[in-house]
Amino acid sequence: VVERVVVVGADAAGMSAAHQALRVARAHGRVLEVVVVERYTHTSYSACGIPYWMAGDVDSADRLVARTADQHRALGVDLRLLTSAVALELDARTVTVQGPGGGTEQLGFDQLVLATGARPRTPAWALAGDGGWVPGVRAVKTLDDGAAWVAAVTGRSAPGGRRPERAVVVGGGYIGIETAEAFVRRGLETTLVTRREVMSTLDPDMGARVRQGMTAGGVRVVCSEEVDGLDLRRDGTVAAVRSAGDAFPADVVALGLGVEPATGLAAGAGLPLGAFGGLLPDDRQRVADGVWAAGDCCESVERLQGLRVYVPLGTHANKQGRVAGENLAGGEARFGGVLGTAVTQFVAGGVHLEVGRTGPTTEQATAGGGEVVALVTESTTASGYMPQAAPIAVKVLARPDGRLVGVQIVGGPGSAKRIDTAAAAMWFHAGVADLAGMDLSYAPPFSPVWDPVQIACRRLADRLADRPG
Amino acid sequence: VVERVVVVGADAAGMSAAHQALRVARAHGRVLEVVVVERYTHTSYSACGIPYWMAGDVDSADRLVARTADQHRALGVDLRLLTSAVALELDARTVTVQGPGGGTEQLGFDQLVLATGARPRTPAWALAGDGGWVPGVRAVKTLDDGAAWVAAVTGRSAPGGRRPERAVVVGGGYIGIETAEAFVRRGLETTLVTRREVMSTLDPDMGARVRQGMTAGGVRVVCSEEVDGLDLRRDGTVAAVRSAGDAFPADVVALGLGVEPATGLAAGAGLPLGAFGGLLPDDRQRVADGVWAAGDCCESVERLQGLRVYVPLGTHANKQGRVAGENLAGGEARFGGVLGTAVTQFVAGGVHLEVGRTGPTTEQATAGGGEVVALVTESTTASGYMPQAAPIAVKVLARPDGRLVGVQIVGGPGSAKRIDTAAAAMWFHAGVADLAGMDLSYAPPFSPVWDPVQIACRRLADRLADRPG
Repeated sequence: VVERVVVVGADAAGMSAAHQALRVARAHGRVLEVVVVERYTHTSYSACGIPYWMAGDVDSADRLVARTADQHRALGVDLRLLTSAVALELDARTVTVQGPGGGTEQLGFDQLVLATGARPRTPAWALAGDGGWVPGVRAVKTLDDGAAWVAAVTGRSAPGGRRPERAVVVGGGYIGIETAEAFVRRGLETTLVTRREVMSTLDPDMGARVRQGMTAGGVRVVCSEEVDGLDLRRDGTVAAVRSAGDAFPADVVALGLGVEPATGLAAGAGLPLGAFGGLLPDDRQRVADGVWAAGDCCESVERLQGLRVYVPLGTHANKQGRVAGENLAGGEARFGGVLGTAVTQFVAGGVHLEVGRTGPTTEQATAGGGEVVALVTESTTASGYMPQAAPIAVKVLARPDGRLVGVQIVGGPGSAKRIDTAAAAMWFHAGVADLAGMDLSYAPPFSPVWDPVQIACRRLADRLADRPG
Repeated sequence: VVERVVVVGADAAGMSAAHQALRVARAHGRVLEVVVVERYTHTSYSACGIPYWMAGDVDSADRLVARTADQHRALGVDLRLLTSAVALELDARTVTVQGPGGGTEQLGFDQLVLATGARPRTPAWALAGDGGWVPGVRAVKTLDDGAAWVAAVTGRSAPGGRRPERAVVVGGGYIGIETAEAFVRRGLETTLVTRREVMSTLDPDMGARVRQGMTAGGVRVVCSEEVDGLDLRRDGTVAAVRSAGDAFPADVVALGLGVEPATGLAAGAGLPLGAFGGLLPDDRQRVADGVWAAGDCCESVERLQGLRVYVPLGTHANKQGRVAGENLAGGEARFGGVLGTAVTQFVAGGVHLEVGRTGPTTEQATAGGGEVVALVTESTTASGYMPQAAPIAVKVLARPDGRLVGVQIVGGPGSAKRIDTAAAAMWFHAGVADLAGMDLSYAPPFSPVWDPVQIACRRLADRLADRPG
C-alpha cells in the first residue's frame, strides 16, 4: 500500500515534514508518496536573510535558498510549484489545488500537512487603489520583496538609476531593526517609527538600550507613534510617512509590522483557530485525524506556563515540521514548546549592538497576576582587561521562589548568543541559583570568570535570599 | 561572640570564601573576624590573563588583579600578605603562620578555609642547581612569571635589550596553546612540544583540528614526544629542548605542563587526599569539622557520573569558595559539581581558532567500560550565506540511550562559547534529542537555523533511532 501525503506549503515547516516523513517511513518499511504544493516559485528560503541581502552581505536570492526544487525532488518529494491549495474537504480527504495553468485538480490524501505560513501585516495605507503596494512601500518577507528592495536601494528600479536618499522603517521589531541597519549601511538617511519602544519583545528599559544604540548608529528613532498614512507624490510614489502630526520624508518605506498566520484554507475546512488566528496543533503537531500542521500558520505552547503563544520563527517551523513528518509516518515525536528565544543585531554607523531574549517580558509574565522579580547587571563580554571586552547588560526575570522567567541581553560583540545558555537552563525549569552554579566556560577573551548571565542570576539569587552584595 | 575564621590563600577561592562568609554572617546577625593569610604579595589575580599580558593585550599586572589588598581590607577582611601557613593543628584549632619578618605566630580559629591552590608541574630538567629556573625557562602561572615573561619577550631582561628569537612551549593544553599564541604574536619562531596530541582534553580527532590550525598559524607542533632535557649555553642559559633524539633550539622555554594541588599543609595535619593529591571536600566544601576547602587544592566531583576529578579552574574556585563561605557562616549552599567545561583560542598568524569542550573525552567516558556513541558534524557559525560564516566542527558523545556525555567544538570566530549551551543542557542530564529540540536562538549573523550544536545532537539522535539522514 502506498499512502499519499499532501503537504501545503514548501518552506521550512512543509519541507521538514516532507523529508522527515520519507526518512521515517523508510525506516519503518512503509511507502509514502509525498506531494508538496507551493503557491510561489521557490522553496525553503531564508526570509531572515533578506535584510542582509538588502545590505549587500548576500549577493543573490539563490544563496538564501537552502534547497532547490530539484534537490527536493531528487530526495523523493513530488514538488508542485505555482500551485495553490484553494479548498480542503476533510471528510472527503481531498484538497483542491490550482496549478500554474489555472486549472484545478482534486488531490486525495491519507495524511495532510498544513504548512501555509504567515503573511505580513499590511495596513490599508500601504496599499494602492489596485490592491498592490504604493510605489516605494513594501514589506520585507518574500524573495520577491527582497529582489524589489535590492533593486530599490541600488537604484536599479528607479528612472536614471537614482538611488533613494531617505528611508522610513515602520515597526521596531527584528525585521524593523535589521532593515534599518541595511538602509544605514546603504547610505540612506533612515528613520524608524514604532508605536511602542524599539524591540517590544524586551522590557522597555532594555528596549531603550537598543534605541540608544541605533540612534548612535545614525538611525532617527521615533517611538510611541502610530503611522496614520502616507503623503504621495504626484506620480503616486511615496513622499512621506505621517504619524501623529509629524511627517517623515521618505523615498522608500519598509514595513516590519510582523506577520499573521495564513489559515484561510484551514478555516474554510472548519479547523479551529486560536486567539492569534493560528492553528492549534497538539504536541505531536496533529490538528485533526490524519491532519497535521507546522510552522508560522500555527500557534505554539509556551513551555514553562503552557500558554498558547504565536511565535512565527524558522527555528520552530523546522522543528515542528520534523515532528509532524515523524508522527505521520508512524514515528513518535513531540514538540517541546517554545520559550521565545531570539537574537538580532544592529551593526552600522560604527555601532555593534547585539540583542538576545528568551521567556516572556515582565509585562507578559505579570499579566496573569504572577509576581516577577527582576535585576539588570552590567558586565563585559570578555575579562575586563582584554581589548575585546565590550559592555553587556543582562536582565534576569524570576518568580519570587527563584524560578527563571526570562532573560534579556543587550550588548556589544559576543553578547547575543549567550541567551542560549539561559534558554537551555530554562528548558529544564532552572532557577536563578541553578544557573549561577552551572559549569560554564571561561577564558579571558570570552568572558569574565563568572559569565555575565551567571553574574546576573547570582545577584538575583542573593537578593531573593535577602543577601544583597 | 566573635568567631574567628582563618583563610589560607588569598586568590579566587580564599577571597570568595572570605567575602561570602562576611556577607552571609551579616545577614544572619553573626559577627565574624576573617583573617586571610597569603604567602605572596598579591591577591585575586587572573592567572588565565598572563598569556594575554605576554602577548601585549594587557599592559600591566595591575589590570589582572580583580581586587587589591586595600579593597579587600576595606570590605572587612584582615588580610596578611607575605605570610605563610606553615603548620596546622586541627585538634588545637590553630594554624602556625610565618610573617614577612620571619617570625611565627599561632592563629587560633573557629573555622578554617584551605584555599592553598596549586603549583605548576615542574620537571627536574627545568631547574638549575640552586633550585631556581634554568635561565630562559619558566612556567606561566604567577604574576612573577608573567612579569618575567613580559620582560623576556620585550627584550627588557636581556643584555643589550636583545629579544629572543626562538621559543619552545612544552605542553599542549590551554596554557601551552595560549602561550604559543603569545609568542607568535610577539614575532618569535615558536615550537610546541607535547607528549600526546594537542589539547588532550579533546578526543584526538578534534585535537588534530587544533593542531592543524596552530600549524597554519605558524607554530611548529611536535606531538607524541616527551621532553628529556635541555641543552644549555656556556652561560647556563637554555639553548635547546631535547626530545626523543630531536633538539629544538630555544632562547626561551615556557612550561605548560599543568598544575598539581598544593596540599602540604593539609597533609601535614592528617587530612585525607585523593588520587590526584587533592583535598576531598563534600558538596558543602567541608573537609573536617569546622574545616573547609575550595579551589585548586581540591578535587571535585564530576556531576554526571559522580567520579572524583581534578579540574583546577578559576570558575570552580570562585564557586567553591562562595559555597564554603556561605556554609561556614551558617548558610546552606552546595557545589553542584563540575562537567569540565572550558574554552580557549589560538588567534595568531592569520588564524582564528576557537575551542570549547565539556564532559569527559571518549577515552575517559569508556574507561569504566561504558559505551559511547559519537558523531562529528561540520557546519558554520552563521548562516552559510553570511560573510561572517566560519567553519565549526562539533563532536557529540552520548550513551547508547541518548544521554549526553560530552561535547567538543573546534571552529572559527563565534564557535567556543556555544559550549555553554551544551553544558547547561548536560547540567540537567539532557539527552541528545532534548538538546535537538530546545528553543535556541537564530538569526543569520549568529547561526544557521539549527545551531551547529543542535545539528550534531539531532543527527546523533537520528542515528541512535536508526534513522540516518
